[in-house]
Amino acid sequence: MENSELRHIMLLKAKAAKKASRKLGAMNIEQKNNILSAMVAALQQNMKEILFHNGIDIQAAKEAGITATFIDRLTLTEKRVNNAINGIKDVILLQDPIGSVIEENKPSIDIDVKKIRVPLGVIGIIYEARPNVTVDATTLCLKAGNAVILKGGSEAINSNRILVKIIYDAGLRAGMPDGAIQFIDTTNRIAVKELLHLDNLIDLLIPRGNEELIKFIKTHTSIPILSHGKGLCHTYVDKDADIDMAVNIAVNAKCQRPSVCNAMETLLVHKDVAGKILPKLCKLYNNANVEIRGCEISKDIVNSINLATEEDWKTEYLDLILSIKVVNSLEDAIVHINKYGSMHSEAIVTNNKETADNFITEIDAAAVFVNASTRLHDGSVFGLGCEIGISTQKLHARGAMGIKELTTTKYIVKGRGTIRN
Amino acid sequence: MENSELRHIMLLKAKAAKKASRKLGAMNIEQKNNILSAMVAALQQNMKEILFHNGIDIQAAKEAGITATFIDRLTLTEKRVNNAINGIKDVILLQDPIGSVIEENKPSIDIDVKKIRVPLGVIGIIYEARPNVTVDATTLCLKAGNAVILKGGSEAINSNRILVKIIYDAGLRAGMPDGAIQFIDTTNRIAVKELLHLDNLIDLLIPRGNEELIKFIKTHTSIPILSHGKGLCHTYVDKDADIDMAVNIAVNAKCQRPSVCNAMETLLVHKDVAGKILPKLCKLYNNANVEIRGCEISKDIVNSINLATEEDWKTEYLDLILSIKVVNSLEDAIVHINKYGSMHSEAIVTNNKETADNFITEIDAAAVFVNASTRLHDGSVFGLGCEIGISTQKLHARGAMGIKELTTTKYIVKGRGTIRN
Repeated sequence: MENSELRHIMLLKAKAAKKASRKLGAMNIEQKNNILSAMVAALQQNMKEILFHNGIDIQAAKEAGITATFIDRLTLTEKRVNNAINGIKDVILLQDPIGSVIEENKPSIDIDVKKIRVPLGVIGIIYEARPNVTVDATTLCLKAGNAVILKGGSEAINSNRILVKIIYDAGLRAGMPDGAIQFIDTTNRIAVKELLHLDNLIDLLIPRGNEELIKFIKTHTSIPILSHGKGLCHTYVDKDADIDMAVNIAVNAKCQRPSVCNAMETLLVHKDVAGKILPKLCKLYNNANVEIRGCEISKDIVNSINLATEEDWKTEYLDLILSIKVVNSLEDAIVHINKYGSMHSEAIVTNNKETADNFITEIDAAAVFVNASTRLHDGSVFGLGCEIGISTQKLHARGAMGIKELTTTKYIVKGRGTIRN
Repeated sequence: MENSELRHIMLLKAKAAKKASRKLGAMNIEQKNNILSAMVAALQQNMKEILFHNGIDIQAAKEAGITATFIDRLTLTEKRVNNAINGIKDVILLQDPIGSVIEENKPSIDIDVKKIRVPLGVIGIIYEARPNVTVDATTLCLKAGNAVILKGGSEAINSNRILVKIIYDAGLRAGMPDGAIQFIDTTNRIAVKELLHLDNLIDLLIPRGNEELIKFIKTHTSIPILSHGKGLCHTYVDKDADIDMAVNIAVNAKCQRPSVCNAMETLLVHKDVAGKILPKLCKLYNNANVEIRGCEISKDIVNSINLATEEDWKTEYLDLILSIKVVNSLEDAIVHINKYGSMHSEAIVTNNKETADNFITEIDAAAVFVNASTRLHDGSVFGLGCEIGISTQKLHARGAMGIKELTTTKYIVKGRGTIRN
């Protein structure tokens, strides 16, 4: 396809999405839930077809010699499709964010000011291997009254195409406006570049993928972006910690799923309890094949620890590697975290309320955990339904993002012929 | 000054601001209001000195042959300083946004999730002539627990320097953390460029000034920006409008202060009432020296109207010029506004509730007015205290921005040794 033709197609798709978004924005919760319910039924009925088309992608990926991890992410099973279906069901149960009054003011007798929640309009999702994002993202966008433009990874194009066909047809039959879901059905990379120029039609872009993809998008568009940031997360074991609890949390935060953003990368331990907790903990880490890189003090306590370098404090391992530092005080822990952390998820284990409160106030992060594992930072754990990611930005959305983060606001001002004097 | 030296100074200033912001963020409302009250007293006591230093700037501007409009914006009078002082008093009366619980969830028995409001950290304000912004912006930033970096226009440097000296000294005596207000005391333009690189220290930039300045900043930084957008605002007079009310609103929206973003630029009139309202209205506009550029139908009704071109529907005049279009229906009005409007402030005059509701739902704008003038779109009119601008972005802040828009959020998660399974 010629680039100019591709540009034209992208423009038409974005225009169709904008048109549909106006209709979606005026729909009530019953109408939107009907559409989502129809999608649930259609996905259930077409399970075999989904797995068949996914099989084509998997076969092609294997032939292309793509890594096993990647193929795992690409693979749909009956269980994974059912998880996506359950995600839709959870979102159906959520209240409608649209139209809710956020603020209300009556600054004078002849004027009423309300700030209400409204859809953003058109949301573009640019993602990589996992085909379930096709379903998750569409579900959240539609519930919040937005049209969605989907650009998945080339390797998943057959899976994404069949998933979109199923949910689109089901949605239309249940009253979804024509054009509400736009699928970019090409593996041509120019398509993404063209989308990035449509800042008058696309209201938000959500890139989901590796840092390179996100960086590329950020530097090539003026469309606002919400992106999943990196997680260099710490757990601080205070001198007033319950040692057993601290051990339990520290093992969970590192080992339960080390490859994700909310896993712990650095453990900070107060010097008064380091001698008590580190031997116990390192034994457990050893059993779990965790490589430890610690400061000199930690190495004096547990000989098998490797010495950490400055680089270690800055590294998001996303692996079974952990850096450990013994600190002199709460203050030292806070300084270390605010210096090296990525403002994602930070935890303290302590039974001292004042210490916990100081930690909460002074740590600059999207989520602060007291006596809990950083692994809990997740939209579904927090009760938001399925999530669209975890933001480490400070503007618009911070931390686990749900439906509300896919909306904006509108002031509604009602007067009685009111003018400005 | 060498550029490398300037770079070093900017870095030190931003670091000092970040350090101060941690302390400000932990202050309660009494502490913050004490600081603001001290500033009120100090500004009152030093009125003469302020006007004296402002006089130096005005003299220099006159000698440089700068326009009268600009000199008006640069000029401080006792009344204008008192307005700024009253702005601080209004902000003192506002509730503390910090620490308030926005959402609360208990997704399971052993975990409590709260989302609370916290300061952004360090806010940079880059502005032009008006020295009162120095006081307004500092006040809002401090009340929201943020440190502020002020970079005013070169022409106002003496005025800004004395204002900062007065409020800084007064703040310090009242317990403000050292470094909470950073004044960029140079007219070297490189200073701004250096600030734009400090994305790890500055959390938000607010450019206030012409479109060129805002564009320059947007394209040269990865620091998040909140900017005041342009206003191409419409008023639609519906067939069910009260004609006297419509006349009153249409005159106010155009004439009360034509140079500002929330003034009306285009009037849309339903064909059924065009014959009734246009002659009356054009007479009043004529008396107010408003130049009218209308569609052919409007010209058939009032001969003196000049014919509008396509360019007119796209133009933010910011002047005593108005374009007028007669439309066939509410739907036509909505299509015109969503096509040409800047999503700032849009008004309808109608006594038909259903028509008003459709207009509210389908118009995509920061604020929608029913039977009221678009000129009312203002933070102080809406009861937000002084305002930091009106955003036409959809992310983070939309419409009149107050203190809340200078904050972000933090999840506080309290467990009982809770881990992820």
